[in-house]
Amino acid sequence: MDTPFHNVAIVGLGLIGSSIARAVHERLPATRLSGFDLDPAVRERARALALVDRVAETAAEAAQRADLVILCVPVGAMAAAAEAVASGLSSEALLSDVGSCKAFVAEELRRALPEARIVPAHPVAGTENSGPDAGFAALFQGRWCILTPEEDADPKDVARLAAFWTALGARVERMDARHHDVVLAVTSHLPHLIAFTIVGTASDLERVTEGEVIKYSAGGFRDFTRIAASNPAMWRDIFLTNKEAVLAMLRQFNADLAGLEQAIVAEDGPALFDLFTRTAAIRRGIVEQGQDVGKPDFGRGGG
Amino acid sequence: MDTPFHNVAIVGLGLIGSSIARAVHERLPATRLSGFDLDPAVRERARALALVDRVAETAAEAAQRADLVILCVPVGAMAAAAEAVASGLSSEALLSDVGSCKAFVAEELRRALPEARIVPAHPVAGTENSGPDAGFAALFQGRWCILTPEEDADPKDVARLAAFWTALGARVERMDARHHDVVLAVTSHLPHLIAFTIVGTASDLERVTEGEVIKYSAGGFRDFTRIAASNPAMWRDIFLTNKEAVLAMLRQFNADLAGLEQAIVAEDGPALFDLFTRTAAIRRGIVEQGQDVGKPDFGRGGG
Repeated sequence: MDTPFHNVAIVGLGLIGSSIARAVHERLPATRLSGFDLDPAVRERARALALVDRVAETAAEAAQRADLVILCVPVGAMAAAAEAVASGLSSEALLSDVGSCKAFVAEELRRALPEARIVPAHPVAGTENSGPDAGFAALFQGRWCILTPEEDADPKDVARLAAFWTALGARVERMDARHHDVVLAVTSHLPHLIAFTIVGTASDLERVTEGEVIKYSAGGFRDFTRIAASNPAMWRDIFLTNKEAVLAMLRQFNADLAGLEQAIVAEDGPALFDLFTRTAAIRRGIVEQGQDVGKPDFGRGGG
Repeated sequence: MDTPFHNVAIVGLGLIGSSIARAVHERLPATRLSGFDLDPAVRERARALALVDRVAETAAEAAQRADLVILCVPVGAMAAAAEAVASGLSSEALLSDVGSCKAFVAEELRRALPEARIVPAHPVAGTENSGPDAGFAALFQGRWCILTPEEDADPKDVARLAAFWTALGARVERMDARHHDVVLAVTSHLPHLIAFTIVGTASDLERVTEGEVIKYSAGGFRDFTRIAASNPAMWRDIFLTNKEAVLAMLRQFNADLAGLEQAIVAEDGPALFDLFTRTAAIRRGIVEQGQDVGKPDFGRGGG
């Protein structure tokens, strides 16, 4: 495959940034990589892991000579990261990101870098782990990467970025930034909000100890604890920057939950059975379309 | 290991019943097994799979000569199952079950069989799949099985049942039935209620299509779809028979969710960060105590 970019700079070397680095090494070996992270310990770890060809001491230095700069920081830190790369960014370079909220990030990047070539992106992939050791090359394999270019973006830039993500194993979709934010509010942000809440609820009960919650978590609760163990700063920023869409989804969820509560109060068995039958279908769709493993219990087995 | 029971009858040959049968074959080979299921197709399948030594044509016939009879049916069907075994049950036989709600089931069993030796039990294990083909011998390995004997239960019966579940690989705990129901309302019933709700919410939206929900489900949503694909009849019965504890937990969850919503509205970053940091600790406890795999993303990997 042609190399869509010759020099890629990754700013932020956590789970996503370090996964991009590993995937580029594996799938685009001709591409040179530079990297930077605000945390000196992460830069040191990145050197030890040889994540990139060159770990820079500033974001601007990482961006020098890059034809693609990807900001892989929490969405609340995007503006600062964009300002930090500014002095190193060539006028030919494409600037992109991996943030989970696209309307807010697009505005922030445009304000920080009014003249830059910008195509925001969001690879819908991740794990509950954080940091440079948590990344792996196959993270984006079979997952969707959503590009949200503004209307006046250069189609060539969009095509090159799409080729880049395709090379890393992702499937690429293009979407309006605001619609992206509504879609992700359902498929990612609301599930995380709910998971954080229920794990908090369970750990604060008077009648049930935390030890009991842990022991009997295999009844379902443990599934929620995985995503409730995700990076706190990243998720704080997502809820603050996709506030409107998240609150709208939450209102819908609350209404539906109140309906289910009412069915329990009224002992309306048929209503419960009907909902529980419908919800199985969407699981089948997800497995059939390769967005989850089909094995029971995520393949965890009995041990 | 000594065989705690010589003849075990399993009434209901779905995920749990067929897993018990497989585990007994593997770990207690001297124990004879009989089985029954109300569904003729399941009985036929049980014969084809050789799940038990003898598939009976009635529950009472399955219970004949058994020194342990385990009812593995949805909790709403326990009373009928207990009545159905009555005429075959020897006065020496121990009757048990695997239901997720213990106070309700204990009452139902006692009413149906006033003179029987009864020790209710609940193995906290399962997958989203149902039916005789879904079971596997390792399902109970390392999981907890909670016994909820009444105060006047014969300690020898409790000890024998504990030995049986230990032989199948489970860890055994004894608990008051009402306390069990509160604990399971948190660790199992509320998580399922939330998962059923959010999957229903996502599939009913106007602004986001079901196709989009499926495509971008790897952002977190897909985790909820697994438990929302569980057996509808079983879960309907659980919510109807553990109503009080479930509604109490739901009130607590709603209050906590309203607090989080308020933090988002007020853009209170520190409050969000604080909660999201606390919730990671409980995940570590679950992994350390062997109640979930420690691999990122449940070990699903990138594909």
